[in-house]
Amino acid sequence: TVWEEESFQGKRCEFLMECPSIMERGFRKIRSIKVESGPWVGFEYPEYQGQQFILEKGDYPRWEAWSGNSGYRTEHLLSFRPVKCANHNDSKVILYEAENFQGHKFELSDDYPSLQAMGWGNKEVASIKVNAGAWVAYQYPGYRGYQYVLERDRQNGEFKKYSEYSSQAHTNQIQSIRRIQH
Amino acid sequence: TVWEEESFQGKRCEFLMECPSIMERGFRKIRSIKVESGPWVGFEYPEYQGQQFILEKGDYPRWEAWSGNSGYRTEHLLSFRPVKCANHNDSKVILYEAENFQGHKFELSDDYPSLQAMGWGNKEVASIKVNAGAWVAYQYPGYRGYQYVLERDRQNGEFKKYSEYSSQAHTNQIQSIRRIQH
Repeated sequence: TVWEEESFQGKRCEFLMECPSIMERGFRKIRSIKVESGPWVGFEYPEYQGQQFILEKGDYPRWEAWSGNSGYRTEHLLSFRPVKCANHNDSKVILYEAENFQGHKFELSDDYPSLQAMGWGNKEVASIKVNAGAWVAYQYPGYRGYQYVLERDRQNGEFKKYSEYSSQAHTNQIQSIRRIQH
Repeated sequence: TVWEEESFQGKRCEFLMECPSIMERGFRKIRSIKVESGPWVGFEYPEYQGQQFILEKGDYPRWEAWSGNSGYRTEHLLSFRPVKCANHNDSKVILYEAENFQGHKFELSDDYPSLQAMGWGNKEVASIKVNAGAWVAYQYPGYRGYQYVLERDRQNGEFKKYSEYSSQAHTNQIQSIRRIQH
């Protein structure tokens, strides 16, 4: 359910499926959200463009609650859709040092708030292959910064270069990553 | 290592142990950080007061990288110390519905990006007991909002009411929680 005002005030609308543009529903903006069952991914712009924001079950009383702290301040959330994701145990992703799945690689099936602590030597990840489930990758350690929602069922799970992580990816910097669970 | 300017520029200093006040080291502010081995917890004010920011291994080129998105914007990080934390498998915390460890409770030993998805009925947690390891609790789902670093070795792991979560805790709203690992 989305509301036009903060703290669940004002005009509201409940969704059971994807919404490519809230403007078509008569909303100028969304300022608070309650997720009853999910998870969902929200997008800065219509048609699932722009920055991505993972929306797990819970209460988001203001835009800061879902934006975390992106590289730049954005208060927009204009489209959203459900995430296809796996059972807790069935998530697999491979990180690559170079584009097109080349170079040094690491296969993960767990959450990593610090890739460098795990042994990944860089702060960049140049290409990614999702073999199972859905993941959120982040620019900074501790699940902060730009968020990239990467699903097996999108683009065949193959992200050959950082510009494919999202339509607004400015950097190949990824320092933490975690599974998206039901 | 901390720097006075963004992107690891300007005056720098390396620390191997806690620092109760960066001002005593001749710094007016910290604008970027690299954690070689940790994790650490940074504080908004000297003497480990104010908001808390978990600092795992990696690169933090600007203040937004560690602040996530707190309830209010703060660019200060004026003290920090290492976190005492457990092996991956030895973390246990109990969440309570009411103060002083009363009411409905939940014992956790894993990460929960959405407590409500797990079955915790509220967006509040009124008291917390850390039995093993160290945890970060967050105001919003998906590890966003205010961060509270809760360690077994601090305050005997007992936080009887939300004002004990941190010296700046404004709310008992906790919607996600995760273990801090080496």
